[in-house]
Amino acid sequence: MKKLRIAVIPGDGIGKEVIPEGIQALEAAGRKHSVEFEWTYFDWSCETYHQTGRMMPEDGIEQLRQFDAIYLGAVGFPGVPDHISLWGLLLPIRRAFDQYVNLRPVRLFDGVPCPLAGKQPGDIDFYVVRENVEGEYSSVGGIQYEGTEHEVVCQQSLFTRRGTDRILKYAFDLAQSREAKHLSSATKSNGIYHSMPYWDNRVLKMAKHYPEVKVDHYHIDILTANFVRVPEHFDVVVGSNLFGDILSDLGPACTGTIAIAPSANINPEKTYPSMFEPVHGSAPDIAGQNIANPLGTIWAGAMMMQHLGFPAVHDSLMQAMETVLKEKQHLTRDMGGVASTQELGAALVRHI
Amino acid sequence: MKKLRIAVIPGDGIGKEVIPEGIQALEAAGRKHSVEFEWTYFDWSCETYHQTGRMMPEDGIEQLRQFDAIYLGAVGFPGVPDHISLWGLLLPIRRAFDQYVNLRPVRLFDGVPCPLAGKQPGDIDFYVVRENVEGEYSSVGGIQYEGTEHEVVCQQSLFTRRGTDRILKYAFDLAQSREAKHLSSATKSNGIYHSMPYWDNRVLKMAKHYPEVKVDHYHIDILTANFVRVPEHFDVVVGSNLFGDILSDLGPACTGTIAIAPSANINPEKTYPSMFEPVHGSAPDIAGQNIANPLGTIWAGAMMMQHLGFPAVHDSLMQAMETVLKEKQHLTRDMGGVASTQELGAALVRHI
Ligand SMILES: CC(C)[C@H](C(=O)O)[C@@H](O)C(=O)O
Ligand SMILES: CC(C)[C@H](C(=O)O)[C@@H](O)C(=O)O
Repeated sequence: MKKLRIAVIPGDGIGKEVIPEGIQALEAAGRKHSVEFEWTYFDWSCETYHQTGRMMPEDGIEQLRQFDAIYLGAVGFPGVPDHISLWGLLLPIRRAFDQYVNLRPVRLFDGVPCPLAGKQPGDIDFYVVRENVEGEYSSVGGIQYEGTEHEVVCQQSLFTRRGTDRILKYAFDLAQSREAKHLSSATKSNGIYHSMPYWDNRVLKMAKHYPEVKVDHYHIDILTANFVRVPEHFDVVVGSNLFGDILSDLGPACTGTIAIAPSANINPEKTYPSMFEPVHGSAPDIAGQNIANPLGTIWAGAMMMQHLGFPAVHDSLMQAMETVLKEKQHLTRDMGGVASTQELGAALVRHI
Repeated sequence: MKKLRIAVIPGDGIGKEVIPEGIQALEAAGRKHSVEFEWTYFDWSCETYHQTGRMMPEDGIEQLRQFDAIYLGAVGFPGVPDHISLWGLLLPIRRAFDQYVNLRPVRLFDGVPCPLAGKQPGDIDFYVVRENVEGEYSSVGGIQYEGTEHEVVCQQSLFTRRGTDRILKYAFDLAQSREAKHLSSATKSNGIYHSMPYWDNRVLKMAKHYPEVKVDHYHIDILTANFVRVPEHFDVVVGSNLFGDILSDLGPACTGTIAIAPSANINPEKTYPSMFEPVHGSAPDIAGQNIANPLGTIWAGAMMMQHLGFPAVHDSLMQAMETVLKEKQHLTRDMGGVASTQELGAALVRHI
């Protein structure tokens, strides 16, 4: 019996409602495949911030280091400015543990009403591979002439060759492993002068090592348009921290709901724990109502099991998810149903 | 008889095919309302670049300064890197003439097949107001350790109080003038530490002067998702140079085709000429086939007439556009039809 030690950070808002469903589903699937879990809870959140002035303790990163993985709900809540809450918890974890790959599948499931006319389940099935630790997400910069009408705000983006090449390599490897072998790269080289042409050049260089992979270069503006127009066209889409973020909300929106989308923050070398979370945020507007969709968190749990080397657990979670969606009996409001968070979670567990 | 002096830059690719249709439509609508045009052509393009090493002559900006407005097709073509072609022509014009407002309407017309399920003409009708001269579109920055594996690329974004406040004021004024009085602001304050919280704060400050305007703050990721989910929700959407760029491609894609979308690069003070162009690019893949949709260029021409103080010419162009779309007899391929660029242009002119 293998025992996995997982750090759990439910966080804020609906994070606290979806994490219990994820844990329950993982427990059920684990039991079937002789995997046990030890869950260690960390109540780090905007509430903690109000009490202590910090999102996590000073040695927070140290506390997490020993775990096999981190399972996170959502962070951020009105009352704490977003840049404070996120730079105090989620973003430092991604960076400290060198989780430089953010892998986000986009899939249209049978049972989920699709906002795009005429698309069938199976039509949309791709991955967004997002650079997760550098780029536009940067606290480098500042403000000059603060408080006067002459204020100038400098916001630095930083791209390194190491950071760019390793995310591209991951994306090319993924594309190479898939049937379509098709990589689309997102930049904005006509407007953003230094970083984006650099990214394009690194793509061209990397492509030489993958002669079988067909590579498309897109500007981010037309790429978002094509997600709506021809989502079936995409296979693996790679982008910077910001562009990957945008595309991995837009993609799932095109499949009916962002609430089922998972986000795997991966340290591929496994030197450090990786972190798994839903794409959605803490959703203050629906928090406390027991209507949040737990499937993004459950799918994230499945990705965690894949990453930790338990594909059978992953598969049994994914099959249960497919079945519960297809049945349409226990869908939450965002998918056109009336089930509560717990009802959908429980229905999924029955299918495991 | 008023005579307008217009500088025409057809540019590259389909730019050269759509501009003649725009001019023909403007001529027809002008005749009806006693407005005459004097068109002065500038063949500045990537071809010029190949011949001369420059996208436009050194005194290009000076040559344009005397005109009432600039009418542009599209710029950029394979063979010239995008950042070279755009920083050599389009972007310097926007900046030299302080065209700090980029106004881009998004509308679902009767006759255009909508990719979103269940949306009706009239459901989608909003403006993207894009900051057009600063922000993320920046040539400030560079590369350290170039050519080595230690390369670091620094890309600066610059936001000023003046630049932020004046675009917000324009957007608030526009929202105030509309029935819904609803402004949505796009930022990414949880990830981008300095510039985006700054923008949010300026929105809060500006909002105090517009007590009637309802203001929503969005992170760009979920905002793109909501364009697909609930486009009918939006009225005026304001964003930085990059976010406005993305939203004004995505918005039109949600209404069926980006090819009808216009882009008005406005200097509201009228100190300098403003520039009018379609949102779409030079589209090398379909250039030379006479299948490009001329309506984005024609609608841009209508916005030019509005800006120059001839609302009757604007209205007659828009009515002709609505009629030709509704008829569905002469639609180009992107709208599900088979008409050529010229057939659609000519059909529109018959309705003027
Ligand atoms: C060509 C490019 C620089 C331009 C921009 O991004 O501003 C275009 O996409 C647009 O939207 O007008
Ligand atoms: C909360 C925010 C900082 C985060 C991000 O943009 O990375 C979220 O949107 C996500 O996509 O995981």
